[in-house]
Amino acid sequence: MVSVGIVGASGYTGLELIRLVLNHPNMHLSHIFSRTYSGQKLSDVFPQFPLQSIVFNSFDGADLNGLELDLLFLALPHGESHALGPILESFEGSVIDLSADFRLNDIDTYNATYDQHHESPHLNDAFVLGLPELKRHSLTSTRYVACPGCYSTSVILALWPLVQKAFNMDHVIVDAKSGMTGAGRTPKVNSLFVERSNSFAAYTSGVHRHIPEIRQEIKCSVTMTNYFLPIRRGIISTCYLPNQPNWSQTQLITAFQDVYKDEPFIRIVDDIHYISTAHVEGTNYCLLFPFIQNDTILIFSVIDNLMKGAASQGIQCANILFGDPETTGLMGFS
Amino acid sequence: MVSVGIVGASGYTGLELIRLVLNHPNMHLSHIFSRTYSGQKLSDVFPQFPLQSIVFNSFDGADLNGLELDLLFLALPHGESHALGPILESFEGSVIDLSADFRLNDIDTYNATYDQHHESPHLNDAFVLGLPELKRHSLTSTRYVACPGCYSTSVILALWPLVQKAFNMDHVIVDAKSGMTGAGRTPKVNSLFVERSNSFAAYTSGVHRHIPEIRQEIKCSVTMTNYFLPIRRGIISTCYLPNQPNWSQTQLITAFQDVYKDEPFIRIVDDIHYISTAHVEGTNYCLLFPFIQNDTILIFSVIDNLMKGAASQGIQCANILFGDPETTGLMGFS
Amino acid sequence: MVSVGIVGASGYTGLELIRLVLNHPNMHLSHIFSRTYSGQKLSDVFPQFPLQSIVFNSFDGADLNGLELDLLFLALPHGESHALGPILESFEGSVIDLSADFRLNDIDTYNATYDQHHESPHLNDAFVLGLPELKRHSLTSTRYVACPGCYSTSVILALWPLVQKAFNMDHVIVDAKSGMTGAGRTPKVNSLFVERSNSFAAYTSGVHRHIPEIRQEIKCSVTMTNYFLPIRRGIISTCYLPNQPNWSQTQLITAFQDVYKDEPFIRIVDDIHYISTAHVEGTNYCLLFPFIQNDTILIFSVIDNLMKGAASQGIQCANILFGDPETTGLMGFS
Amino acid sequence: MVSVGIVGASGYTGLELIRLVLNHPNMHLSHIFSRTYSGQKLSDVFPQFPLQSIVFNSFDGADLNGLELDLLFLALPHGESHALGPILESFEGSVIDLSADFRLNDIDTYNATYDQHHESPHLNDAFVLGLPELKRHSLTSTRYVACPGCYSTSVILALWPLVQKAFNMDHVIVDAKSGMTGAGRTPKVNSLFVERSNSFAAYTSGVHRHIPEIRQEIKCSVTMTNYFLPIRRGIISTCYLPNQPNWSQTQLITAFQDVYKDEPFIRIVDDIHYISTAHVEGTNYCLLFPFIQNDTILIFSVIDNLMKGAASQGIQCANILFGDPETTGLMGFS
Repeated sequence: MVSVGIVGASGYTGLELIRLVLNHPNMHLSHIFSRTYSGQKLSDVFPQFPLQSIVFNSFDGADLNGLELDLLFLALPHGESHALGPILESFEGSVIDLSADFRLNDIDTYNATYDQHHESPHLNDAFVLGLPELKRHSLTSTRYVACPGCYSTSVILALWPLVQKAFNMDHVIVDAKSGMTGAGRTPKVNSLFVERSNSFAAYTSGVHRHIPEIRQEIKCSVTMTNYFLPIRRGIISTCYLPNQPNWSQTQLITAFQDVYKDEPFIRIVDDIHYISTAHVEGTNYCLLFPFIQNDTILIFSVIDNLMKGAASQGIQCANILFGDPETTGLMGFS
Repeated sequence: MVSVGIVGASGYTGLELIRLVLNHPNMHLSHIFSRTYSGQKLSDVFPQFPLQSIVFNSFDGADLNGLELDLLFLALPHGESHALGPILESFEGSVIDLSADFRLNDIDTYNATYDQHHESPHLNDAFVLGLPELKRHSLTSTRYVACPGCYSTSVILALWPLVQKAFNMDHVIVDAKSGMTGAGRTPKVNSLFVERSNSFAAYTSGVHRHIPEIRQEIKCSVTMTNYFLPIRRGIISTCYLPNQPNWSQTQLITAFQDVYKDEPFIRIVDDIHYISTAHVEGTNYCLLFPFIQNDTILIFSVIDNLMKGAASQGIQCANILFGDPETTGLMGFS
Repeated sequence: MVSVGIVGASGYTGLELIRLVLNHPNMHLSHIFSRTYSGQKLSDVFPQFPLQSIVFNSFDGADLNGLELDLLFLALPHGESHALGPILESFEGSVIDLSADFRLNDIDTYNATYDQHHESPHLNDAFVLGLPELKRHSLTSTRYVACPGCYSTSVILALWPLVQKAFNMDHVIVDAKSGMTGAGRTPKVNSLFVERSNSFAAYTSGVHRHIPEIRQEIKCSVTMTNYFLPIRRGIISTCYLPNQPNWSQTQLITAFQDVYKDEPFIRIVDDIHYISTAHVEGTNYCLLFPFIQNDTILIFSVIDNLMKGAASQGIQCANILFGDPETTGLMGFS
Repeated sequence: MVSVGIVGASGYTGLELIRLVLNHPNMHLSHIFSRTYSGQKLSDVFPQFPLQSIVFNSFDGADLNGLELDLLFLALPHGESHALGPILESFEGSVIDLSADFRLNDIDTYNATYDQHHESPHLNDAFVLGLPELKRHSLTSTRYVACPGCYSTSVILALWPLVQKAFNMDHVIVDAKSGMTGAGRTPKVNSLFVERSNSFAAYTSGVHRHIPEIRQEIKCSVTMTNYFLPIRRGIISTCYLPNQPNWSQTQLITAFQDVYKDEPFIRIVDDIHYISTAHVEGTNYCLLFPFIQNDTILIFSVIDNLMKGAASQGIQCANILFGDPETTGLMGFS
């Protein structure tokens, strides 16, 4: 059994990790850390876990190696993980960070994007991007994993087959809509039920912090527009790019099927009616629908932002690190 | 034209007051006060008012009599209005307070219920309860109005005909469900979209602060249970009481129709299908459906908590104070 | 492995049964029946089951014994199961009916309540009510189970400890609110998103068809009011009854804890903050919060109407029938 | 006073027309037609209109000229209006059709797009497109108006300034999201609350029937993707096109401001935070936010699909036909 600790366990991603670890046949939930709820029982604060008497602790000053953890998940806001560098380096187990702090190879880009001064640039080099469909091989031989952002995951998976097949692309337009868990559990007027219920709004255009992650893997210019949906979870990212090489629909579909033919969590679909957040809710799947129209290639990409966009992608990476089949603990209900 | 100022104008009740004043034929929106948005234009902060270039100011230290206001609405959290006593006493216009601070005749009850030390007990005596169906006569000769709470309004209106007809009642059970605007616009985890969307929860039983208001007018014991609905606005309060005098359904309906026969905003309905928050959304109406079953009297009461439960009830009172027909500015779309 | 067939598999309860059977360690989903989708693959019609290539068939004229089923779930609208009497009697496996057709001991009451002429009164006598907390012993020795309605389950479980402890009760008031899956998957104007979103409405008072089920087990007069919530799943039934025997809060809690002390799916809670549909979503739990106020006993009862109110209660019963621990396949994520 | 009749008055657009006509200072609601509710009072079927005792009638066989109507709104599904040709031609008043039947100049395109055989091609030539920002002059001298579709309105208004300023555009990508009233009030599984609540889905890509309307006015190739949002009303259409003429941001904004400088219902905004359906809910406004990024021009267009996308646009046209200021009856609450 892999002994697991979760830092930032009371956020939406942290809670999802708790759920997944509790249901994983080879994992044991050993420690959960939260400043806000330190000293309180999980079952009291979050009654959806009625049988769990495990108690939240504060991570501040924890003696990590004394806790006998094999795996530590970091589910913190950006800017907090990189400050933990020395602690992470002396930790003997594996680390899977779901924040942005170790995702970008280029420290300057990180600092500029997140308005930070990265305190652990050396450690940054040791991190592997936690996107198994691209980095599976590297993930087998690392102890440090930085999972990509939710939008990044949906967009990179949509475009990766084109990269693999040397499709000529200079510029991609991405119209990306997310559920409200993407805004986090910190109280803000803009996240209130009354503000969001029964309305739909754009919130960034062209300046989203996930763009550098996408560019790092896809190497093309990206124009991305982001919206918040009045739903709890789910992302649909729609990618538009010119069909410069003049591919046929068959070539396009074949490229996707070929690149992802052994992927357990990627589904290539052939009809718009599959494109619903409801179809991936609570799962690690990514649905992709590529097709051509008017000399434009469209690729719809659907994930659950808390799952393939965060927590279950972390578990998928953990399965690789610890030698389990990638689907372990992730196939419930499908 | 009545020149109007609104303190606490950026809360949900304050915004609703703005809307109503802007559409009132005999009112002029003169000043809006908000600490948070002081110095900003209404149309910038709240784009649903695209043509309104009026600017928010801070109320702190405002020279009220220099502003040439005829009417001041207070839409503040409880505990703030009573501290304004001296300012309100020297103000030459009328005051309509939508908070709890001047609703209770008994200062000790107020202090105990709201954990306050009321600073203006003398002024409290001058206030009339802003519930026109009960206090119309007194409202014609006061400058100080304290509108009842949203739950209180729905429950008092449901039980008032029984009081008027000397129905013998000792104890009432009230099962009362409210939309989330009732929780206010202050950010709290419990009010987040993700926490509230697609769930339904109880939040108090037997200790709601509106109970003393109800008891003050109805004079019987009240057991009230309160829930938050995943909707923005609307209350359904269902009242249950024993049919001790053994009334017939006809007696019951007749009592309601008789007591409310001249009321423009009370509708006595005769079928459960009317009992929906959708039917009063954005209006000053109260729908009442009284009927008898198994020796129990049931009264369903439906209002919009921001309207008859707050802002439009304030306007109805203002109409009385300034000699307009009560329905002025309140009959749109019906 | 128990070989399972589901009739009415494309309704909301049927889909939930599919999900539960697929995740049950000792069950095999063998046949799914639906007139609407006959001939279509489960994964095509309901993409939330991406790996399931099982095909819907029509149940009409199926040779049940030729299918080698151990267990047949009926998830049909009321009025259809009782017409299947001869088929069910010749079937060699077990039957768990989630409709109302075999719940009521008294055929006349059934016929009057549902406006039917029951065609299988003899078979009706063989059915045991599928509520393990009350009927566990009888369930071990039957092949015919009729699960109670969703409201009935929530209310009977709330009142059963009082019955067991000989609490004197003549009359109960129940204010019961349900999610929209309770209205079924048949298209109706009243069930449309636009009609229900952001509104809350009552729909019956005193005439709900579940009242005879409650009276059958609880033996007292029931006044029940029913509402539809703008949520997908979940019920909160709040029961009010006079504290005639003048019990203390301790006596009350002790009675509940004692009666349910060995029940894996009943949780007695001691604070209103537990009373949320979110806390039981997707689970077989029933949360109960009993307390006394103003000489009134209040009992809040929370279930997921599709789970403890339908599908998972059916699985719990199946576990009893086939000798599995009751919790088998039902403890995920808790 | 303009005497108004509404055919198809019980659909979502029809109900919105009722509301607007009731609140219009120069209109009188004379007749409402609905097959479904023929013989029933408006206030009974739709209690949100508590004071309206007007009765629905069936339009079939109505003697239109005997009704003394000045204006007839048609709010019917496509395919029904064109069959009314002879009736409309003999009618002495004006006709504003909100369906698709008289929007397209080219009858063959209509027939192909809607799978119809248009029965009134001659009358079709008499209709003027009911989009005042483009067709104001023609609208002053016609009795026949065909309002454009909701998506068409949002997209044409977004692109029209570029057409006016001779911007070179070959191809536009439109990612367009609509509230569920766009799916109509006819019961369908796909429109049920349970299916739509808390999920987001695409439903067409490249084949939407509004594309020919857009092409008719904008004269360029259009790739449009459409989604249903879990909200009742509101559309955000995001248009992407290459900045071929290499305009500056200033040129772009200036073009929009210049073309729309006298339009009372178009608002050019300069920040993404304005782009929310909440900001136009219940109004006739169209919000436009044009800006340039990465050699791509983006234009966000926000309307209420039931208002500027249907009913209030019809009223705006009616104001032109009857010589009222265009804003008459449409400026409430702004």
